Amino acid sequence: MVREYNVAIVGATGAVGTEFLRLLEQREFPLASLRLLASKRSAGRSLRFCGREYTVQELTPESFEGIDIAFFSAGAGRSREFAPHAVAAGAIVIDNSSAYRMDPEVPLVVPEINPEDIALHKGIVANPNCSTIIALMAVAPLRKVGAIRRMVVSTYQAASGAGAQAMQELLDQSREVLLGQRPQPRIFPHPIAFNLFSHNTPVGEDGYNEEERKMVLESRKILHQPDLRVTATCVRVPVLRAHSESINVEFEGARPPLEAIREALASFPGVVIVDDPERSHFPMPIEATGRDEVLVGRVRADISNDNAIDLFVCGDQILKGAALNGFQIALEWTRRQSA
Amino acid sequence: MVREYNVAIVGATGAVGTEFLRLLEQREFPLASLRLLASKRSAGRSLRFCGREYTVQELTPESFEGIDIAFFSAGAGRSREFAPHAVAAGAIVIDNSSAYRMDPEVPLVVPEINPEDIALHKGIVANPNCSTIIALMAVAPLRKVGAIRRMVVSTYQAASGAGAQAMQELLDQSREVLLGQRPQPRIFPHPIAFNLFSHNTPVGEDGYNEEERKMVLESRKILHQPDLRVTATCVRVPVLRAHSESINVEFEGARPPLEAIREALASFPGVVIVDDPERSHFPMPIEATGRDEVLVGRVRADISNDNAIDLFVCGDQILKGAALNGFQIALEWTRRQSA
Repeated sequence: MVREYNVAIVGATGAVGTEFLRLLEQREFPLASLRLLASKRSAGRSLRFCGREYTVQELTPESFEGIDIAFFSAGAGRSREFAPHAVAAGAIVIDNSSAYRMDPEVPLVVPEINPEDIALHKGIVANPNCSTIIALMAVAPLRKVGAIRRMVVSTYQAASGAGAQAMQELLDQSREVLLGQRPQPRIFPHPIAFNLFSHNTPVGEDGYNEEERKMVLESRKILHQPDLRVTATCVRVPVLRAHSESINVEFEGARPPLEAIREALASFPGVVIVDDPERSHFPMPIEATGRDEVLVGRVRADISNDNAIDLFVCGDQILKGAALNGFQIALEWTRRQSA
Repeated sequence: MVREYNVAIVGATGAVGTEFLRLLEQREFPLASLRLLASKRSAGRSLRFCGREYTVQELTPESFEGIDIAFFSAGAGRSREFAPHAVAAGAIVIDNSSAYRMDPEVPLVVPEINPEDIALHKGIVANPNCSTIIALMAVAPLRKVGAIRRMVVSTYQAASGAGAQAMQELLDQSREVLLGQRPQPRIFPHPIAFNLFSHNTPVGEDGYNEEERKMVLESRKILHQPDLRVTATCVRVPVLRAHSESINVEFEGARPPLEAIREALASFPGVVIVDDPERSHFPMPIEATGRDEVLVGRVRADISNDNAIDLFVCGDQILKGAALNGFQIALEWTRRQSA
């Protein structure tokens, strides 16, 4: 008999929580029961799941009794406050926030890349940042053909990374601009419609913003390469929910043959190559939206460096960038329980 | 007495031609007379200039009699066909198309960077491609503090680079998406509203598209560095008329001090530094739009390479990326005539 699990979703009414719920509903998962948790403001709301109404309960330290798996997507503050209670209650926490990602006691996992790290958990497994997951889905497969020395990443990040309200803001502001009105920023610090801007996380002493620092540090941790060289420039663009990234990857040694590189990408689970110069068809946010896979294209030898390649990747920020990756961690953990 | 010049604009009704006309009207220029030229389709239209109506004339081989300066912005085909007639008639041609840019007999000029090359002309001076001009306005100043070895560029290019109709298409498609309709591409091969895609110029054997190849070859020519290492990934984004570019610049030797780099940028004509982490204020298309200067920010030491820096630049694609640069070439040429 297959064991089934009691699952709690913290932040069940948010963009990522909603998507996690949809994944639980639509995909195979050994689910015994479901508990939806959110802040006091959202408590009492009703959500439909598998034809039944579930009432969202207020998140409290006592919310996790009997829970086996708790998925957290309610911000780093809530994770820091409540994840320890979930762990104390015996649950494994899969945390989508940045709270524990760089904690040496907490594995940071992309299941296609480092599933074995799940086994090292002490109660919490962290879900990496969206732009890191999407970049590494294109970079990790290359390790099959050559060691990676350095990544130079420029991102084109969708509004969804800042939540459902930010997506609405992009739509609202676009309407305002089309009506000849001046858009009024509410969520983002600058107009997002027909504009773009440097990712608005705080900038450190070294000039990198937090989103860029996540790309650097999380990539090193996930790939188990503490010396990996990474630089990133993270930019928000007027796109709804798929991130794009232009990545220059330098190998330790001479560039492997492009054919071997393409083969390594094509055979990697979760990657689809979209690279058709004839039809000018390459990865695009509108085609990555709603898809599990990240799309990789523009794979070419870098003419400025014999050891490097350029590529371009798109992935759904809410799916592989957040909810799907967390769901896959949960699923992988359940498989390892019964193995 | 200051000499005055008879000027012709070829492609006077296009996005760049219109902007060139506006510059001639609003700025100091030793103008004697003006002739507006366009294809048969636009001939007969009337354009207002300095309070007077001018009728657009059909472009023919005989259009250039008495003309001193001919500004061409009507596509490479028209330049190839008609520029030789303008030269034969004694005019200097300032060509905004790609037709002559890589011709070794034709100087390729950004007046802040290589104004002395204008003197080498044999009838034609080429205006570089928009994304090249904007990138080099940020990179050329750095040569004051260190030799440049390599550039890794990712672009965020506005719709205007594909003309006025493409800008309209972005607005129309955005409206369609907001109304729940499926946008119908006409100018671009893919939807541009709330999307982005690899620049749709033809892709060569080496995997680079023509826009990227322009960045590589034109940068080498303008900077007089035939061995300059450049790689680029050119992407079209849903922005109206200012290009943005994320650039990683590697010096030949150790990275100069950041203070010296900032000073070199700040003192370069046509560059404005916008780099305020406190207010999360960096270069943005909506602030570069309508400005002569390119905005440079996110200037920081690349933590992945001791010899490199990262920066982010925005410039108005129609102004510094096209019409303004051509106007500046014309003005510089007139100054050199009277010098």
